[in-house]
Amino acid sequence: MVVAPPDTIMWKNGRLKIIDQTKLPTKLSYIYCDTVEDVWHAIKQLKVRGAPAIGIAAAFGVLVALRNSRGSTSEELVGKVDKAASYLASARPTAVNLAWALERMRAVAHRMKKQTPTNIMTALKKEALLIHEEDRLLCRKIGEHGARLIRSGSTVLTHCNAGALATGGIGTALAPVFVTHARGKRVRVVADETRPLLQGARLTAWELKRAGIDVTLICDNMAAQVMREGKVDLVITGADRIAANGDVANKIGTYGVAVLAKAHGIPFYVAAPSSTFDLSIRSGKEIPIEQRHPDEVTEGLGRRTAPDRIAVYNPAFDVTPARLVTALITEKGIIRPPYRRTIAAVLCGRPRSKKKATSNDSRRREKVS
Amino acid sequence: MVVAPPDTIMWKNGRLKIIDQTKLPTKLSYIYCDTVEDVWHAIKQLKVRGAPAIGIAAAFGVLVALRNSRGSTSEELVGKVDKAASYLASARPTAVNLAWALERMRAVAHRMKKQTPTNIMTALKKEALLIHEEDRLLCRKIGEHGARLIRSGSTVLTHCNAGALATGGIGTALAPVFVTHARGKRVRVVADETRPLLQGARLTAWELKRAGIDVTLICDNMAAQVMREGKVDLVITGADRIAANGDVANKIGTYGVAVLAKAHGIPFYVAAPSSTFDLSIRSGKEIPIEQRHPDEVTEGLGRRTAPDRIAVYNPAFDVTPARLVTALITEKGIIRPPYRRTIAAVLCGRPRSKKKATSNDSRRREKVS
Repeated sequence: MVVAPPDTIMWKNGRLKIIDQTKLPTKLSYIYCDTVEDVWHAIKQLKVRGAPAIGIAAAFGVLVALRNSRGSTSEELVGKVDKAASYLASARPTAVNLAWALERMRAVAHRMKKQTPTNIMTALKKEALLIHEEDRLLCRKIGEHGARLIRSGSTVLTHCNAGALATGGIGTALAPVFVTHARGKRVRVVADETRPLLQGARLTAWELKRAGIDVTLICDNMAAQVMREGKVDLVITGADRIAANGDVANKIGTYGVAVLAKAHGIPFYVAAPSSTFDLSIRSGKEIPIEQRHPDEVTEGLGRRTAPDRIAVYNPAFDVTPARLVTALITEKGIIRPPYRRTIAAVLCGRPRSKKKATSNDSRRREKVS
Repeated sequence: MVVAPPDTIMWKNGRLKIIDQTKLPTKLSYIYCDTVEDVWHAIKQLKVRGAPAIGIAAAFGVLVALRNSRGSTSEELVGKVDKAASYLASARPTAVNLAWALERMRAVAHRMKKQTPTNIMTALKKEALLIHEEDRLLCRKIGEHGARLIRSGSTVLTHCNAGALATGGIGTALAPVFVTHARGKRVRVVADETRPLLQGARLTAWELKRAGIDVTLICDNMAAQVMREGKVDLVITGADRIAANGDVANKIGTYGVAVLAKAHGIPFYVAAPSSTFDLSIRSGKEIPIEQRHPDEVTEGLGRRTAPDRIAVYNPAFDVTPARLVTALITEKGIIRPPYRRTIAAVLCGRPRSKKKATSNDSRRREKVS
């Protein structure tokens, strides 16, 4: 039986409705975000999270901002779009989809700035709905491309949640799993719980179990042992930003999983739509890494589990170097090394100069085993 | 300022008193174990934990069993020692120190079986106190040997708790840190929180902070990133059992840390007293791994953090292959590869046959970089 994935984000009667993911898995509850501050806080506090989902929520967030105050002239309205976009982009720094979706909204406003406020509003609403609908289709395509990598009977290890809850569709990392399952093939998932906020335990385990997919929960520090026991055939994770060279920023712990996968000869795949790629940066070194509050580590789970005033290091993301990534699964197909050439070729249809590509390629090929 | 480590286990006026480690770090509370069942449950429920500490607690546990019912003849008494030892040994299967300490108690009883019950009792009490006192000295020696590996200004990453709380003295993995600090040298510790039961967050962070040592808490899945940032100079962990070939069973997650350390060129040390070595087994494959209840993963932290009836894999330990262990720190000195020869030589003064050792050595040397 195939269960439809939950709708993480809904635009209903001019209002933004989201699943409050901080309440899962014990409670499936929805909240309305009726002010732009509500949207900002929902993103900041991870009520809505996942790179594609926060892009979608932010696009609707611009509409929410305008609904309450859109100004009397087109110029004022465009100014308010800019202001709302800047504000919403500040909620989280790492995932590029947030800035990308807001930039699309800004571009529409600026393109139409000579038109009436009503026309601009209509176009903005259309754009936000399009971003949402496009993501649904991208997820489906990612799932179809990725499913080619999953043999029947395989076990996929995943980290964090890059499923339906993180997107407008069936997810990125989990999309190939959902598609494989829907086709009646056997597929199992090992879900890292993903400390500190347990997106694996709370969200991935929840949505896979709900869909009737065989899922086993482990603590993050058990991944190495599970791999050593031969219980993992491939790893698939999502991404928050991918640089031009294939370096991948994703939930903290992803880099460690990639190192472990390599040590055990297990392929490590990253699934993400085009909007997650940031070709303006050459490598992962340029990706800003969000640092979050120590309380997430010391008392994020209901009770204090560390001494008072203990020093805590709590980066929300890490960067996995391209050499550890077997392939990137996108809606446009599967991208393999040498990434500096193939990413640009697949996403933009513009390969790098032959000479440069060749010099990078041979080095890259050596690194990827 | 050097703060004396807490006494995890005390024998006071014929009663066994222990710190209830499940209450740390928010509460330092002590409990008495007045029946052998109390001792068994304290070990099973990790009120007392750490390989050396459970050995010590079990030795006193034999005295607790006899205090309530020692029989009227020496034969009966010896039978009760055997029974108590078998029972207590069943509390946890992986750490060899438990069986080792109980075997020492049994050996005393059997050696003295022709003597009066009072004499046997006196000898048993003396043996338990000796096991405790010896451990204190072993920890000190491990600390002194291990301190040679720590340069001033170094940062040590550790996993789980192999500190004072886990032993009768200043710990095993943490002993070199305590000795370095006591000598006035700068040393920092990065403590993995160690899911599912958070011994790193609850215990290691607590006892290091209490001693005035600079400690930073991380989630287990952050270790790779911290290593990549160049913030870790060496790793030291404890052990629950070490096989004749140097394979190390220790808290789940240790193996992953060892793989990561190797990938980052960071030395990986294991600190343990002789009693942790089990030369009767050739490799780690023969070490039984305790599986624990899924609730530790799904609601061990105060509230439910995973869907109901989710499948969970929860091994309490893993085995780190000898090839990933840079050296073993024992009370008898630092043991380096080739372990199959050096462990036997250092612990028993009996090297393996020249031929066999040579054949193993060259292979081993290649594997350890």
